[in-house]
Amino acid sequence: VEIIIDAPGCERGYSIAVRAGIRAVSSLHIQIAFAGDSGTLSSALRAEGYEPDTFRLIHTDQSIGMNESPLEAIKQKPHASIIKALEEVAGGESQAVVSAGHTGATVISATRTLGLFDYLRKPALCQIMPTASLKHFLLLDAGACVSVSPSDLINFAMMGSAAATQYFGITLPRVGLLNIGREAGKGNRRLLKIARLLEKAPVNFTGNIEGDQIWFDAADVIITDGITGNILLKAAEGLARLLIQEIRSLHATGSDILNKGTFRSFHPAQYGGAPLLGINGVCIVSHGNADEGALFNAIKTAKWCVEQEIPGEIASALARHYSTGSQLQGN
Amino acid sequence: VEIIIDAPGCERGYSIAVRAGIRAVSSLHIQIAFAGDSGTLSSALRAEGYEPDTFRLIHTDQSIGMNESPLEAIKQKPHASIIKALEEVAGGESQAVVSAGHTGATVISATRTLGLFDYLRKPALCQIMPTASLKHFLLLDAGACVSVSPSDLINFAMMGSAAATQYFGITLPRVGLLNIGREAGKGNRRLLKIARLLEKAPVNFTGNIEGDQIWFDAADVIITDGITGNILLKAAEGLARLLIQEIRSLHATGSDILNKGTFRSFHPAQYGGAPLLGINGVCIVSHGNADEGALFNAIKTAKWCVEQEIPGEIASALARHYSTGSQLQGN
Repeated sequence: VEIIIDAPGCERGYSIAVRAGIRAVSSLHIQIAFAGDSGTLSSALRAEGYEPDTFRLIHTDQSIGMNESPLEAIKQKPHASIIKALEEVAGGESQAVVSAGHTGATVISATRTLGLFDYLRKPALCQIMPTASLKHFLLLDAGACVSVSPSDLINFAMMGSAAATQYFGITLPRVGLLNIGREAGKGNRRLLKIARLLEKAPVNFTGNIEGDQIWFDAADVIITDGITGNILLKAAEGLARLLIQEIRSLHATGSDILNKGTFRSFHPAQYGGAPLLGINGVCIVSHGNADEGALFNAIKTAKWCVEQEIPGEIASALARHYSTGSQLQGN
Repeated sequence: VEIIIDAPGCERGYSIAVRAGIRAVSSLHIQIAFAGDSGTLSSALRAEGYEPDTFRLIHTDQSIGMNESPLEAIKQKPHASIIKALEEVAGGESQAVVSAGHTGATVISATRTLGLFDYLRKPALCQIMPTASLKHFLLLDAGACVSVSPSDLINFAMMGSAAATQYFGITLPRVGLLNIGREAGKGNRRLLKIARLLEKAPVNFTGNIEGDQIWFDAADVIITDGITGNILLKAAEGLARLLIQEIRSLHATGSDILNKGTFRSFHPAQYGGAPLLGINGVCIVSHGNADEGALFNAIKTAKWCVEQEIPGEIASALARHYSTGSQLQGN
């Protein structure tokens, strides 16, 4: 398995990408390639004591910045590092891409270069999140799309179910809809329509979920739109980071507490990257400000998705449903 | 000052309402009245060692349950406890209502009974939230409305600014828009339009805010729609509650840590209720599952809003803007 790291995507510099890659090679038994400026990559590798030719370097001097409009940038920079990396996966040279770059640009490039599965209009970021009981749930969409229809969300529920079966080893994952109240009938017209469609969809829909319930094992898959999902994810990460820092600063034995189950499982770096589901390949989206630990965990997630053949599982689940003619109604 | 507690709204029973009310009378120097079934209220008061006639009881045998459709319920139950309570405030008999009941029903009843200020189409729940540096920000809308237009959100920004001036004693509160990235141009068409309108609005708009930034004093007022706001608020409360419980269970000296600044300020019960802004009176919305401490803090917030004349401040801010003819464009 070879995984490509999109090096210019790291806000904290190439050195983070290089260090995470070196650590991955030595502990995960995989190959790592780097996409980015080969001169800068070579210097960063030498600074860590490695000869540049130890790794495959995919050279390009184009990269997409966080302030750029993704559609414009992709048009103007056909050789951007994220695109070059994805082309390697499309061509079968590599098995996965990990990027901490511009999420919108990664989503659009991945959709174009690797292709979206039949029946889909949009992909979704699938973020694994911790709960109180040392269990986890999957949040979709964690921020791939800024605008989705109710039927897109039903597809996200099917993809999340298929992924949860692989992640958690359960056959009928519970699917919940994030809403402002747990009672049926809560929310606006759009949420009511999504709930109605989820009732009929081939998933184990268990109803609405409120924001506080998500931490108490209320569902295995939680569905929301990419705006709310992204805001929720980052707010939770920020709050967990803050309270964990606070324990560390207040108490000499704070680090004892932090190594215990729940705190360990709530540390944001554990969840360094989310796979983009719905595309024909493995692409992991990490944070712009990811540190070495977060990027290393994103690489681990990439390896796992390749080994579990997550894209194939998603494609099968969609095909099983749609090819039987039970098309979803409504848009 | 007399504050009415809508007793049937408490999911945990009348006893919570009664205990919070008794505590408020003894420590806040205010009068408390209870709306609800007078028989049940009398028993609950006697159970606490009080003669029922120590408090003004506003009797009704109608109340709105969490599973009811708010519009239907209000039509079918014109004497529901929340409506009776609000009528007392409209008539000048009382100065504020605190309810832990059905949020939708409270919002609609308050809008009808107390009236919405000129120029507004919708009210907003204004939730005060803690940040790392022991500061706070105001989140609007924390869940009053399930469907709002961009111009409604601009009104929420103006109301939030006026409230922040009273809450924090600052003349030009920083207003941020919750979004998926901090760079201008992030988000969907709707968020782009809201950002454009905020630029022109008579508020100190400082740009987009990401979910994690909210905990690090990024703005004094944070604007979002009621769905995202409610989900974010509850998710943060649930996570803070969980991590705080975890410290308590893991460490004998956990309670030492919990009494320190940040942890104390992050305890959800501190933020027991949010004022509904935009209506001509004080109405505080608390959680259905509020405990005595949370409800007591909601009563404290009600008292503070009455004393600071928050509704009047909001009305003045709106009038200053709209009466000068600088009407907001767009919808």
